[in-house]
Amino acid sequence: MDHGMTEQLNVQQMAQRLMTADNILILCHKNPDGDTIGCGSALYCALKALDKNVAVLCSDAIPNRYAFTNAHMFKGEFEPQTVVAVDVASVQLFGENNGMTQFSRHVDLCIDHHAGNSGYADFTLLNGSAAAAAELLYEVINAMGVAITPHIADCLYTGLATDTGCFRFSSTTANTHIVAAKLIEAGCHVEELNTLLFDTKPRERMEAERIARNHLEYYLDGRCALIYLTRDEIEQSGVDPADLEELTSLPVSIEGVKVGLTLRQQPGGSYRISVRTAKGVDACAIARRLGGGGHSRAAGCELLGNLENAKNAILAEVEAELDAPQEEA
Amino acid sequence: MDHGMTEQLNVQQMAQRLMTADNILILCHKNPDGDTIGCGSALYCALKALDKNVAVLCSDAIPNRYAFTNAHMFKGEFEPQTVVAVDVASVQLFGENNGMTQFSRHVDLCIDHHAGNSGYADFTLLNGSAAAAAELLYEVINAMGVAITPHIADCLYTGLATDTGCFRFSSTTANTHIVAAKLIEAGCHVEELNTLLFDTKPRERMEAERIARNHLEYYLDGRCALIYLTRDEIEQSGVDPADLEELTSLPVSIEGVKVGLTLRQQPGGSYRISVRTAKGVDACAIARRLGGGGHSRAAGCELLGNLENAKNAILAEVEAELDAPQEEA
Ligand SMILES: [Mn+2]
Ligand SMILES: [Mn+2]
Repeated sequence: MDHGMTEQLNVQQMAQRLMTADNILILCHKNPDGDTIGCGSALYCALKALDKNVAVLCSDAIPNRYAFTNAHMFKGEFEPQTVVAVDVASVQLFGENNGMTQFSRHVDLCIDHHAGNSGYADFTLLNGSAAAAAELLYEVINAMGVAITPHIADCLYTGLATDTGCFRFSSTTANTHIVAAKLIEAGCHVEELNTLLFDTKPRERMEAERIARNHLEYYLDGRCALIYLTRDEIEQSGVDPADLEELTSLPVSIEGVKVGLTLRQQPGGSYRISVRTAKGVDACAIARRLGGGGHSRAAGCELLGNLENAKNAILAEVEAELDAPQEEA
Repeated sequence: MDHGMTEQLNVQQMAQRLMTADNILILCHKNPDGDTIGCGSALYCALKALDKNVAVLCSDAIPNRYAFTNAHMFKGEFEPQTVVAVDVASVQLFGENNGMTQFSRHVDLCIDHHAGNSGYADFTLLNGSAAAAAELLYEVINAMGVAITPHIADCLYTGLATDTGCFRFSSTTANTHIVAAKLIEAGCHVEELNTLLFDTKPRERMEAERIARNHLEYYLDGRCALIYLTRDEIEQSGVDPADLEELTSLPVSIEGVKVGLTLRQQPGGSYRISVRTAKGVDACAIARRLGGGGHSRAAGCELLGNLENAKNAILAEVEAELDAPQEEA
């Protein structure tokens, strides 16, 4: 993996650089998730505790469910001297709104857990085996000698829990649980956060899921399951399209299913296809054949044409992959 | 809380009694869940490692998804001298099949985490703040000096994860996460287990959920949401009724909903009503008015009569509770 011209730092070195900096601007990635926002807010509080000028910048609006993190958003109140990115794997992910491009051109520090981090920052703390950037940032804040307040713990727990599907995803390690324990001991509101993050779904989301479940279809002797939503259905349900991400894990969760497909019609009429696979089946190989890409268990592609064409095209590739001779491990 | 005539033991004392025992029969509760089976299997392995005669007994069959725990079920191959119950709160929960009543009459040892444990055993290790009996049993096996093998870790992780909804329920504490970390370090197959326990649903379960979601209704200005399944629908879907438990958490997970109701028609025609509430609303108070009971956030009752009657009766009590003047905290 090429990590560009960046210099790799360890936790102590990153803490040292943050402690000697001031007028610090923290950058989150676009379409912000719980990890980038939780880290932005936690680092904001930690640096504020050290009496520094600090603010957070994000190209997109902070979703309501993360409003409680209450980060101070940058409004030009100081001249940023140190720019630090949290949970951002590459420059493209900064986005272009809210004056982002002015600052994302030159990033001083980066704290990240994406193994593919492009190395765009001058100095990077990267740990690809951390389940969330928050898992790493917890160590950095400790190394800065700043107390983990209940609010900082809430922000870091949000990053840790959302990036792991509440400790369910395969990225979860012993250290992830150890950090969760430390955050609970530090006073994070684990009960309220779990309800907010995992058990609170908008009505519109429920309606879209109802429609998608009514469209559940099985193929290839039950080895493939497929759901879909047309543009009309998405619009009639009133769902925020960002809230549909989670649906993509539904078809592959059915017993016996090796490949789960979710087809969502885009505003232009094309179908965005999310491919999720059971262990041992390569999602990326399927998506790549149709011009897409991704990871081994989660990949995607986009197909022009109507629903029937899109289904037939993707199902043909699923069948080819499932019936391909298995490579030696 | 009355804990009967039992003598309370600490972890060391329980470990000591197990180490000096032999010809040990481990009892699980009826309708076995991941905690009672995980504990039964883990304790079986630990005692086997100490070269003891040991077997497990359960009144009901072990569900397929827990078959991997592979406990040796009792077939009369030795004369039990010490009977130990795991995760069983009261004598009624032993059930009456598989020759259970012969042994549940006199229980020597009990390891449990239900605060309301009735104290039926001669000696009890009880910790009501443990999220699972497995959290406690982990300490006992350590105190016995038995190594936590990967298989023992798998069994204990199963108990811990299933009883907490994968670390989501309010019973999850810092210690729950610490034990999870130790089990992962001991080699438990966390990725495979999470897939098996939380992301593998039978087709029949999907079909029943589809039907229930099509029946979603809102009441009382959206403060109450209700789903239902008639007997015909349950039978047509082919779902194992035990697999419908999880559905009861669906209605209350909708934004703005304070009381979630799930009505399931029973073989006799009556409706079993599950009441789930948001924090601050007393589910037990609602269920009690109709002859039921339960906990503050999860309760239930059973009503004779047709669907409309059952709906009207429970909705009247929900309205009364939601509109009742709030008591001082
Ligand atoms: Mn992340
Ligand atoms: Mn239990």
